[in-house]
Amino acid sequence: MTLALAEAEAAFARGEVPIGAVVVLDGEVIGRGGNRTRELNDPTAHAEILAIRAATNAKASERIPGADLYVTLEPCPMCAAAISFARIRRLYFGASDPKGGAVENGVRFYQSPTCHHSPDVYSGFAETESAAMLRTFFRERR
Amino acid sequence: MTLALAEAEAAFARGEVPIGAVVVLDGEVIGRGGNRTRELNDPTAHAEILAIRAATNAKASERIPGADLYVTLEPCPMCAAAISFARIRRLYFGASDPKGGAVENGVRFYQSPTCHHSPDVYSGFAETESAAMLRTFFRERR
Repeated sequence: MTLALAEAEAAFARGEVPIGAVVVLDGEVIGRGGNRTRELNDPTAHAEILAIRAATNAKASERIPGADLYVTLEPCPMCAAAISFARIRRLYFGASDPKGGAVENGVRFYQSPTCHHSPDVYSGFAETESAAMLRTFFRERR
Repeated sequence: MTLALAEAEAAFARGEVPIGAVVVLDGEVIGRGGNRTRELNDPTAHAEILAIRAATNAKASERIPGADLYVTLEPCPMCAAAISFARIRRLYFGASDPKGGAVENGVRFYQSPTCHHSPDVYSGFAETESAAMLRTFFRERR
């Protein structure tokens, strides 16, 4: 989660919403990313999506069972579904996102019958730091 | 929708799940794509995601309000959320997807309070052709 926080800090420095993600397989980082939606003009360039795409590319497979994903904020429906499609084993996230989350909030995708693979979910890691960074970012933008 | 079907046919020919999508703005096609999850080793490379990324890239903006998306199958949660984030105006889709859809089935994302932009949704376009192509694909794979 320390690496995910570093990715979030780097996103902040680039003027992007500060969220970071890391994918780990067998103790090795195989993908990492921070938000780049503005830089790339790409609404899908969330931290999790970039980290997953890097990881599946590194493993030359669209599925990476056994891999774990660490992300500083609760995933949105787009990222929650991508995590499912990639067959991520465990999801560790930081702050909860009542406004946009899709794991413990909103549509709770992993509890839907249309979800065909659910990761084990662990939340609250580095929650304070993750949430503080987001608050600072949005306060500065106002 | 004819162009989306052509993208689905091209995906079929590449050995990918035959789904195609097209983004149109002011009568002009600004993005198109067919499934490439296998070819790209990318679980996020759904037709809609590739079409949206092409469109937002073409317009140099992460949001393309006023643009409409045509896709041969009901979007999954990943794509439904990406459509929302891109501020797509109208969503036209072909076949309904009770197993994996997130618009009229499953989590019905656009009806969630965590969805902050919903496109107008029109369904059933070229439903028969879209569904037949998918059935043929999965029958041949068995």
